[in-house]
Amino acid sequence: MITLTSDFGLKDPYVAEMKGVILAINPKATLVDVTHEVEKFNVRMAAFMLASAAPYFPQGAIHLAVVDPGVGTQRRAILIQTKKSIFVGPDNGILILAAQNQGVEHVYQFTNRMFMLAKISSTFHGRDIFAPAAAYLDKGIEPREFGPEIKDPAKPEFVSVKRANRSLIGEVMLIDGFGNIITNINETDIVQNNAEKVDVDLPVISLKLTLGKTYAETKPKEPIALIGSHGFVEIALNQGNAAEKFHAKAGDKIVVRAA
Amino acid sequence: MITLTSDFGLKDPYVAEMKGVILAINPKATLVDVTHEVEKFNVRMAAFMLASAAPYFPQGAIHLAVVDPGVGTQRRAILIQTKKSIFVGPDNGILILAAQNQGVEHVYQFTNRMFMLAKISSTFHGRDIFAPAAAYLDKGIEPREFGPEIKDPAKPEFVSVKRANRSLIGEVMLIDGFGNIITNINETDIVQNNAEKVDVDLPVISLKLTLGKTYAETKPKEPIALIGSHGFVEIALNQGNAAEKFHAKAGDKIVVRAA
Amino acid sequence: MITLTSDFGLKDPYVAEMKGVILAINPKATLVDVTHEVEKFNVRMAAFMLASAAPYFPQGAIHLAVVDPGVGTQRRAILIQTKKSIFVGPDNGILILAAQNQGVEHVYQFTNRMFMLAKISSTFHGRDIFAPAAAYLDKGIEPREFGPEIKDPAKPEFVSVKRANRSLIGEVMLIDGFGNIITNINETDIVQNNAEKVDVDLPVISLKLTLGKTYAETKPKEPIALIGSHGFVEIALNQGNAAEKFHAKAGDKIVVRAA
Repeated sequence: MITLTSDFGLKDPYVAEMKGVILAINPKATLVDVTHEVEKFNVRMAAFMLASAAPYFPQGAIHLAVVDPGVGTQRRAILIQTKKSIFVGPDNGILILAAQNQGVEHVYQFTNRMFMLAKISSTFHGRDIFAPAAAYLDKGIEPREFGPEIKDPAKPEFVSVKRANRSLIGEVMLIDGFGNIITNINETDIVQNNAEKVDVDLPVISLKLTLGKTYAETKPKEPIALIGSHGFVEIALNQGNAAEKFHAKAGDKIVVRAA
Repeated sequence: MITLTSDFGLKDPYVAEMKGVILAINPKATLVDVTHEVEKFNVRMAAFMLASAAPYFPQGAIHLAVVDPGVGTQRRAILIQTKKSIFVGPDNGILILAAQNQGVEHVYQFTNRMFMLAKISSTFHGRDIFAPAAAYLDKGIEPREFGPEIKDPAKPEFVSVKRANRSLIGEVMLIDGFGNIITNINETDIVQNNAEKVDVDLPVISLKLTLGKTYAETKPKEPIALIGSHGFVEIALNQGNAAEKFHAKAGDKIVVRAA
Repeated sequence: MITLTSDFGLKDPYVAEMKGVILAINPKATLVDVTHEVEKFNVRMAAFMLASAAPYFPQGAIHLAVVDPGVGTQRRAILIQTKKSIFVGPDNGILILAAQNQGVEHVYQFTNRMFMLAKISSTFHGRDIFAPAAAYLDKGIEPREFGPEIKDPAKPEFVSVKRANRSLIGEVMLIDGFGNIITNINETDIVQNNAEKVDVDLPVISLKLTLGKTYAETKPKEPIALIGSHGFVEIALNQGNAAEKFHAKAGDKIVVRAA
């Protein structure tokens, strides 16, 4: 089983080209899209989405993720072997969040020309390098066959929650399709405060919100803070668009403390 | 075989999370998306889309549909067993249109904790409750194993065509991607009138239209009424956007009578 | 294996209806979307996307493509058998680009009622005619079983690069999701000039550009010409939207010559 995450969109044939490459190598592969609608070049958003989806896939799944502004430069191609699955993609942090949650065992630089397409373009390594790797991994080739082990994969800074007194200082990771403001502050961080209400500071507004469990706990169009389905704190409007109302966007700093 | 219908969109990882859950339980499941671009919270539109697509799937297909504004409240989770397939989703009418067309045999409330994820979030029952149900149904677990039979599933009011003298009073069910205005007035309703032309009243405009068989029967940019590919009356512009031109939207009342 | 290309979009249930029809006939079919987000009625764009994706699929793949403004008129349904695969769709040029690249062996008009749905709508031949054909082809039915061989399939004019002295006169085939301006001038055309810089004339602007290999060879937001991942010349902005900046759109004439 192979999952695919990218910023290629569904309008262009890029995703199909990757799938064709995979199926030409491994006709029995089961392919599942995580998303191809990551904001162009937004590695952080892709990393978060992959980290959200990966826990639900079975043991042994191969996760292919390509948001790759450095394609054609010297950035490395890597494979990360965890206790549960194998991740493949560019070495820019896109894989690391999801992989860390599963327990990283080995990281390899992908250099073995044998597992790439014969002709490699300068602009589309998703198809020419990463897709074949996923296909061969899914066929059972061991990660160590792909190249030398490395100890210094790129580490993203975008998911480190800080503590200052009673405050948790995190970041808006993404605005989902419902307009929910999803942060990197997780259930464990917030629950130990045992709060029923929280103060939330966003760049444009400060709010005092109920820390609830479901959107429907508040009135239609009213805001609420809750542990979202990903296990992270989110700010939502019941049946409305919180991001629009509170002018929040991915990357915004967010501070949460028990009220 | 499992079909999936939702308002989760393709940008976020929600659909992938559902698919991961299904494939972790049942790695051999064949998954087919009906659509995930239902307008947010629009149960009627989802019900219509599922009713359009379901007839084309083979005997024994499992249909999973989740547009669920009441998630986390007391609304029930249900399964509907028909002569042809099994439907699973929230008890808000999303399943009933499609199920009725196939002949409803039994409706069950889904209460058996054994067929849900171990941890159930308050906001994402598509992943935690409905996806596992679909996976187990596709593995052959009988619907009656999921909970008690019920006799009072929620019945939507959004697809009852009324007759008043020579008029059929229906509703605009959706505007499709081509801008066609698709109604709930079906072939049987209209054909008995044996009309070649029809008077059509929409909220903003009244039209006298040829009742044709194909868009190309009229000139480019000219309107026509026809029995669409779903078996329902639609108002279209040949190579143009009828909904835009006639200011029609889902939910509008529409009256059709032989001219 | 069956690929699907259309302008049906992912919001409506049309694509799912085609897939349901295929899977009802051939439950073991592997289905891969090329794209369903072709601009409505834009046969050229669909032809180009199919031609981009088809080379990456394995021997024996069935390619179904439906952008069909003439649905319901007398336009023919055809199958094209090539050295590598079989294409099925309307006879309006949508298949020919991709098929020519593989070496056309036979073209058949699809007339055999036995391989269509029992009921054929006037508006949705993708579901009623082309999807069943793809399903039966994938089951091993020979193309010649579908109808008489023909010698005069519609030939598109939209991909003929002309030469005038040192200039190559081509066309903008599509603007991709990154805003890259993709032309029909291919690697072979341009490489024989052995140029490092090229003069490019678009309708609104003339540019002198480096002919590079990767977006990153130029500074962020700076333009570059390169052989894109499809093997065609494209004009791009490093991490930016070239089409927006240079007011280019599909169908524009483009002239390229060694500078």
